[in-house]
Amino acid sequence: MTTTPSLTLAEKASLGSGADFWSTKALRGIPSVYLTDGPHGVRKQGDAVDHLGVSMSVPATCFPPAAGLSQCWNSDLVRQVGAALGREARALGVHVLLGPGINIKRHPLGGRNFEYFSEDPILTGVLGSAWVDGIQSEGVGASLKHFAANNQESDRHRISSDIDPRTLREVYLRAFQRVVEVSKPWTVMCSYNRVNNIPASESAFLLTRVLRDDWKFDGVVVSDWGAVSDRVAAARAGLDLEMPAAEGSDDKLLDAAMDGSLSSAVLDRIAERVTALARKARLNVGRENAVDFDANHALARDAATQSIVLLRNNNGLLPLTPGQSIAVIGEAARTPRFQGGGSSFVNAKRVDSPLDEIRRIGGIDSIVFAEGYASGDSISSGELIEEAVEAAREAEVAVLFLAAPLESEGIDRKDLELPADQIALARAVLDANSNTIVVLARGGAVRVGTLGPIPAILDGALLGQGIGRAIADVIFGITSPSGRLSETVPLRLEDTPAFGAFPGEHGHALYGEGLLVGYRWYDTRKMDVEYPFGHGLSYTTFAYSELQLAVTDEGITATVVVTNTGDQAGREVPQFYVSVSDSEVTRPAQELKAFDNVFLEVGESKAVQVLLRRGDLAYWDVRGDRWTLESGEYIVSVGASSRDIRAQSTVLVEGDFVFVELTMHSTIGELLANPVTKSAIANALTTAFGPTDNPAVGGNVVQMISPSPLHSVIGLLGEALDVDKFQVLLATANSQEVEG
Amino acid sequence: MTTTPSLTLAEKASLGSGADFWSTKALRGIPSVYLTDGPHGVRKQGDAVDHLGVSMSVPATCFPPAAGLSQCWNSDLVRQVGAALGREARALGVHVLLGPGINIKRHPLGGRNFEYFSEDPILTGVLGSAWVDGIQSEGVGASLKHFAANNQESDRHRISSDIDPRTLREVYLRAFQRVVEVSKPWTVMCSYNRVNNIPASESAFLLTRVLRDDWKFDGVVVSDWGAVSDRVAAARAGLDLEMPAAEGSDDKLLDAAMDGSLSSAVLDRIAERVTALARKARLNVGRENAVDFDANHALARDAATQSIVLLRNNNGLLPLTPGQSIAVIGEAARTPRFQGGGSSFVNAKRVDSPLDEIRRIGGIDSIVFAEGYASGDSISSGELIEEAVEAAREAEVAVLFLAAPLESEGIDRKDLELPADQIALARAVLDANSNTIVVLARGGAVRVGTLGPIPAILDGALLGQGIGRAIADVIFGITSPSGRLSETVPLRLEDTPAFGAFPGEHGHALYGEGLLVGYRWYDTRKMDVEYPFGHGLSYTTFAYSELQLAVTDEGITATVVVTNTGDQAGREVPQFYVSVSDSEVTRPAQELKAFDNVFLEVGESKAVQVLLRRGDLAYWDVRGDRWTLESGEYIVSVGASSRDIRAQSTVLVEGDFVFVELTMHSTIGELLANPVTKSAIANALTTAFGPTDNPAVGGNVVQMISPSPLHSVIGLLGEALDVDKFQVLLATANSQEVEG
Repeated sequence: MTTTPSLTLAEKASLGSGADFWSTKALRGIPSVYLTDGPHGVRKQGDAVDHLGVSMSVPATCFPPAAGLSQCWNSDLVRQVGAALGREARALGVHVLLGPGINIKRHPLGGRNFEYFSEDPILTGVLGSAWVDGIQSEGVGASLKHFAANNQESDRHRISSDIDPRTLREVYLRAFQRVVEVSKPWTVMCSYNRVNNIPASESAFLLTRVLRDDWKFDGVVVSDWGAVSDRVAAARAGLDLEMPAAEGSDDKLLDAAMDGSLSSAVLDRIAERVTALARKARLNVGRENAVDFDANHALARDAATQSIVLLRNNNGLLPLTPGQSIAVIGEAARTPRFQGGGSSFVNAKRVDSPLDEIRRIGGIDSIVFAEGYASGDSISSGELIEEAVEAAREAEVAVLFLAAPLESEGIDRKDLELPADQIALARAVLDANSNTIVVLARGGAVRVGTLGPIPAILDGALLGQGIGRAIADVIFGITSPSGRLSETVPLRLEDTPAFGAFPGEHGHALYGEGLLVGYRWYDTRKMDVEYPFGHGLSYTTFAYSELQLAVTDEGITATVVVTNTGDQAGREVPQFYVSVSDSEVTRPAQELKAFDNVFLEVGESKAVQVLLRRGDLAYWDVRGDRWTLESGEYIVSVGASSRDIRAQSTVLVEGDFVFVELTMHSTIGELLANPVTKSAIANALTTAFGPTDNPAVGGNVVQMISPSPLHSVIGLLGEALDVDKFQVLLATANSQEVEG
Repeated sequence: MTTTPSLTLAEKASLGSGADFWSTKALRGIPSVYLTDGPHGVRKQGDAVDHLGVSMSVPATCFPPAAGLSQCWNSDLVRQVGAALGREARALGVHVLLGPGINIKRHPLGGRNFEYFSEDPILTGVLGSAWVDGIQSEGVGASLKHFAANNQESDRHRISSDIDPRTLREVYLRAFQRVVEVSKPWTVMCSYNRVNNIPASESAFLLTRVLRDDWKFDGVVVSDWGAVSDRVAAARAGLDLEMPAAEGSDDKLLDAAMDGSLSSAVLDRIAERVTALARKARLNVGRENAVDFDANHALARDAATQSIVLLRNNNGLLPLTPGQSIAVIGEAARTPRFQGGGSSFVNAKRVDSPLDEIRRIGGIDSIVFAEGYASGDSISSGELIEEAVEAAREAEVAVLFLAAPLESEGIDRKDLELPADQIALARAVLDANSNTIVVLARGGAVRVGTLGPIPAILDGALLGQGIGRAIADVIFGITSPSGRLSETVPLRLEDTPAFGAFPGEHGHALYGEGLLVGYRWYDTRKMDVEYPFGHGLSYTTFAYSELQLAVTDEGITATVVVTNTGDQAGREVPQFYVSVSDSEVTRPAQELKAFDNVFLEVGESKAVQVLLRRGDLAYWDVRGDRWTLESGEYIVSVGASSRDIRAQSTVLVEGDFVFVELTMHSTIGELLANPVTKSAIANALTTAFGPTDNPAVGGNVVQMISPSPLHSVIGLLGEALDVDKFQVLLATANSQEVEG
């Protein structure tokens, strides 16, 4: 990369901040770059321009938000969605779409969870990568966000996410790492929050050490809108582009460069990167810009269909048959909830109504509708419930649409519950008709276990504008449901990993649950859940066989044969979880390391092969501040969910060599574990302390002294240990370790 | 305090380390001070001298270790034990006994939990204070240990206890604070571990800021034996006395003082404090030194008796009647486990055998004994079990003694289970005789729920040398049991707060559960437990009435009337738990803030009055780095255990004023909450963004923007907010806050 040599310092500084709310500055032939909100639709504003959104954006296709789309577990599909978004963005002159959001769902009450994929970094990373591949294949840049550990809305501009290094790398950065390394997003967006007390926008650790040095990111780091409060500190840390335009900000940068407090190389870097971004954006000029909104709507429907999770289906209540007498209940059937509020809010081009689509397939005559509750805020709804109960009682089947309260950027949720009037409605309807199917709309996880004995539940999360047709198709079995939960549904809020620690207080949120986020927590602590991670039923059945593992230079290759053993075509999502036997470090009970999806006709079998990458099997080793792949026995489990394991096998993996120097500060236990130093220590202990079992301390002296560093007991050992001779042994032990 | 003026720098330095393993240096008329292990008995070694204990110590009374003694919840009794220890120490020429250990039981597997009192800082602090008052009343110094956050044995010399500031103050330092402030121990012992990455022996925060500045400690800080690895850094941080003698250590200190890298004032301080300690110790000379070992044994029995917890007593199976046909089963009835291993191991003067005492009261003829399992390590025990089953089958009642594996300093426990052979025995005996009473010996919590349907359980924890008589008295109802659990017994290891984070790895243990230690975790997360904190049954019954609360300058005075409503005299332990309604900070569901114990004859009533001290009601406020008592409604619950609340009342408390300045970095939400700034902000939002509910973002704009700092949205507000005028409003708001 080279700088346009003729730029002045002031011009370089000015390239590093917005011209206005959505654009960078055009300068000396460097074109302006237009960025705008996503991620599940292009949110390009019209006349008035702001961020939080007084002005309605131009109509665009609203694909399922990440909370829904992630339930497809289908990276090809996500890639297609990304490409469609790219075409819509390009047609509107948008060069960078602000997405995907790939933060980890730490806690189900996170207000922006609906914009994020999952509680799991591999699922998030794979889908995020597909999204970026898709949009960038159309010449429109992605902005990977919000970097990093942006997991709550409460005090979101000041809160410090306090996270230990291993958890940070293995849980909160892992998806970012994958997408950066695999898909090279044009930009990465730094978040509002602080990480371990340093604002993300000023974190040299995040923006330089991690992003540039470790992951080799070569794009532009852009701030979240309004995230910069110290432009000079941010630039020094690695921020390239402050958005939106901020009065006087460029002058501060220039002043710092002039007075020498900021290296001019920083301004060169900023100018180079922003220029390179503008050049990439310019490649769009002249490309096809017509958008096929019908095709995109069809894709939105397909994405919605594959994202619906059949949580429960007692006695095969679903699918229904056209012509059956059905009571469709709930305002959400008519006014569907298919996205959340805030900067991601899309002015949907069109919206399929679930009620209309159910009527279209099921037949108008056999279907009655009762709203059950009012749209928007809960109001007293006795009459609405009565009417719904009446409808349910007279129908063969009731399909009850329930919708969680609106989730919005800026606001964390208060609990896991549905609105009180919907709970009352659900209980009454279930009472009136035991053949009640619940269809759920929600961004974050919602409890349904308290509603009563629901025989069948379809969970759409948020499905975008194709919601109506997708739900109708699944209800009538035109498509077999195939989505899988991308987050655990807990039994109670009190069961969640961060309960009591979310959202923190006084500027700090301690991520005390560490690695045990989502199913990692419930599985490791052996807790019951309402629905486990990865769960989703089908109208057909699948068998798994012939799980085979092979170790290669890239990792573990796992192959399994999946067969459709039922009587309907369908899509299965084999999930590969890994444990390590007797690991030398703390590990979750199991971790998703790969997955695939496969469509199978009735009776058809296909072999599914996945790579469990070495990097994904490694743990972050704080001793050397690097990834370490542990040697040992790896247990690979494949299943239809995290708690529906169908086959398991083990394989020996030769991992990375870790050199831990033995010194006089090593413990007695460590020195007894080393073959070179063992006998000298053992002899010294016997000479000094006599027999191992010592009545004077009521126990085993060697065990008791085991955690003591040698230097701290050297006085006790006295002449029992010849320290000079022992130093030679230490050197021998260390040299053999290095050679080994 | 004044320094002996004639001391040279070298002499001052030399006063700061041991002369040998247990003594300080005698110098220029300053006498040597002799320190030795405790805490539940004097462990003075004979000829050979070492720390971990090859040489047997001289016989002494073995009182119940803290795991047992803490179950008495009786500070008068603990004070008596402390005084008795003081008399035995003095008679042996010991000036400082190394105790009490008042670390918090963070995790039930902590190998040294048996030496600590509780998972609760108030219970620990009150009992620890009584212990110190007792021993120091006899002119022997205490050594409050292990300061601080020394909660595990794994890697105990290097592990860093990583703890957030609020948890550190409210949970792990609170008991230390109470004992230092109330009872002024002669010495405090710094621990082996690091706290937030700094060795306790080198922590200026712990040894100076907290101990001296905040708590006004004026005694000697002594190192745990071998805890110092950098004498100069330790001295600078606030350590006074390194133990034991360490070759060359004084020279390093002297060199640093000579080359100016260490202020000579540090050496003055060390010399002054050690000299002052020696002067206190000298006051013992000439005091009565005869020890009444019979009286101390009687006290040890009394302490043991009050420390036995009746966990369960279905159908009033206990007490038994002399003459009943009883099978006493289990080697622990003959060879009782009454203490743990390591530096606290006491060469007990005498030990009451439970079997002998049961025979003495119950009658030799009616009692048979079967060992059931072998002492020490588990061995195959089919025959022993058969013999025990036979005995159980033929007796009216079986009394089964079970003992957890030995706990020792230096070794963390592996699980919560009893040895496999004892589990097999218990199941077989329960099968053979449903009237089986289990008597449990253990240091840390042990699971018994898996053994089967045990109708009655006596939990002695560790009872010291009076164990036999104490158990026999309770079994036959000579004394009604009155002990209470000082730690929760969880249902499963997986339920414990620090599961997965204990003991940490690679030198770090993250205290991620934060404030939620012990019952604070189970209660806040609404989890079932095997036995709750504070639990303990009696042979009689008690009623609570007339709970009254009053606010005073010192805190909340709570009074309740307790009546013995049963048919046997007994001791009741009223426990006072506090919650705060709608607290502005995260709080555990309830916290013990005071307790008392009262002995009542049949039909007798007594009023119990306790003070819930302001300081104990306060939380550690990280905003000002100080304690803050929150204003609001305090809910006081009094009960017989944490889950057996008998009365509850509320009181309004006026707390501390907390000034939080409003600035341009305050959030919109904060500015809307202040009466002075509210309307200006609300008007600006309406002007800039229009109606609150905005279809373009799908929700409530004011809520969404609420967490944004004003400075970050000032551009969005534009002319809707006159910034100059608003600055005046801010100043007004701030001045009213300060006045208010």
